[in-house]
Amino acid sequence: MKLATLRLDGATRAVKLDGDVLVDLGVPDVGTLLAQDDWAERAASATGTTYAVDGADFAPVVPAPSKVVCVGLNYRNHIQEMGRDLPEHPTLFAKFADCLIGAGDDIVRPEETEQFDWEVELAVVVGKQVRRARGAEAEAAIAGFTVLNDITCRDWQFRTREWLQGKMWDSSTPVGPYLVTPDELPGGVRPSLDVRLLVDGEVMQSDTTGDLLFDPVALVEYVSTVIRLNPGDIIATGTPGGVGHARKPQRYLVGGETVVTEIEGIGRLENRVVKETSV
Amino acid sequence: MKLATLRLDGATRAVKLDGDVLVDLGVPDVGTLLAQDDWAERAASATGTTYAVDGADFAPVVPAPSKVVCVGLNYRNHIQEMGRDLPEHPTLFAKFADCLIGAGDDIVRPEETEQFDWEVELAVVVGKQVRRARGAEAEAAIAGFTVLNDITCRDWQFRTREWLQGKMWDSSTPVGPYLVTPDELPGGVRPSLDVRLLVDGEVMQSDTTGDLLFDPVALVEYVSTVIRLNPGDIIATGTPGGVGHARKPQRYLVGGETVVTEIEGIGRLENRVVKETSV
Repeated sequence: MKLATLRLDGATRAVKLDGDVLVDLGVPDVGTLLAQDDWAERAASATGTTYAVDGADFAPVVPAPSKVVCVGLNYRNHIQEMGRDLPEHPTLFAKFADCLIGAGDDIVRPEETEQFDWEVELAVVVGKQVRRARGAEAEAAIAGFTVLNDITCRDWQFRTREWLQGKMWDSSTPVGPYLVTPDELPGGVRPSLDVRLLVDGEVMQSDTTGDLLFDPVALVEYVSTVIRLNPGDIIATGTPGGVGHARKPQRYLVGGETVVTEIEGIGRLENRVVKETSV
Repeated sequence: MKLATLRLDGATRAVKLDGDVLVDLGVPDVGTLLAQDDWAERAASATGTTYAVDGADFAPVVPAPSKVVCVGLNYRNHIQEMGRDLPEHPTLFAKFADCLIGAGDDIVRPEETEQFDWEVELAVVVGKQVRRARGAEAEAAIAGFTVLNDITCRDWQFRTREWLQGKMWDSSTPVGPYLVTPDELPGGVRPSLDVRLLVDGEVMQSDTTGDLLFDPVALVEYVSTVIRLNPGDIIATGTPGGVGHARKPQRYLVGGETVVTEIEGIGRLENRVVKETSV
């Protein structure tokens, strides 16, 4: 199944993709859907109102997750090409729900940054509350996957010892359009899929999620050791090489660009970068 | 005013302290109260059911803030005694709502840590939605202050480059018991108050919030530059010297201790540390 949260008449609706229409699932958003134990059966059997895919206005696939946990260095090739040793543990940092925007929304570049950068990421969406999940329990806690662009203000990221203030900008981070369930993906809960990010049509990042050092199941196990994961929570699994900050010369988003962030079989974000005008 | 969230019959109620009783404010918790524009007037004029302070069971003062932003090094004396330069910007890291526990709850020491440590902190509770608040607007966004013990697994904090995984343990972080409004405090929104933390009666940390490098108003200005602050959001302002990890020899919580975390005029957390038994 492919699930999404649509904006409609000033509110939102959870929907599933069925051919070229979106079927209403009877609840306001995918987060609310996932909080129901039998969400998969409900979504599979739903026969509500339909909406056209064409012109659909996507909200963040889960508009208000209780947590967004992001992973730092996690692509083997990228770590090794940087001459670093493979880490023993995943590096984690946070975003909050207020960071998230929809798959087609403008990315507003804050006036306060001069180093506005991109990061394509495969994101795990949690479908069950778990703590210290292991093996099959961790696999079953994965509702599906979506696409996330971990937009980052590098100057703020490196101002102090902790990355958070470069990562948690308001309304910076597109996520969606669809949550795709593992049964639709080669590799299931450990999918091997091409990931790409393009700026104005130029490929900046290109890799495969098969190269992840800590795979989605390992990340659910690790994060849930520390803190419970709730339905709708998001784990962003890290980005491959090719970010603007690491290029020679460095490249940043200044405003006016179109950024396409896509993962094979999961979906595509397309966002215009606009300068903030009324700070 | 002193506001709190009480546990009662499997639910919660927002209350205000009035002499030796707690007056029901008609809403389930302080977060819900603060989401109402006229919360201060409502709370001031409330005349609901009363409950005894004696034996009150306090929930986290705001049970489900949309964000908890914490500050690293922020006490001048402590920074200078460590031989460091005063930083130009606050260092920020995150916790999530699922980290929070009540003022008298047990602190459960996870089996996975050998370095379980304490950190007394003055915490700001936000009372208005603001973004890029400056000056008087930032001052007015402070609903009040509470006490937070930023319990930390040092071994996990320093496993990787980012602190988050040592800071976001589930149900680790007592916060409360009261939100105290600035009008009750000397210094108002920039209060100068003694802070202390004791383990089994031995004073481990003792300082004054007047020594904060980035004061509460400056922190509201800084954090709200990056992301909106919502009613009920918490900013933990950092801890003074005396944490277990920095002592010689190092001291950690092993289970069985009672930790008292107190700030003059605001309140007192008293928590037993218990070993996790059924991981």
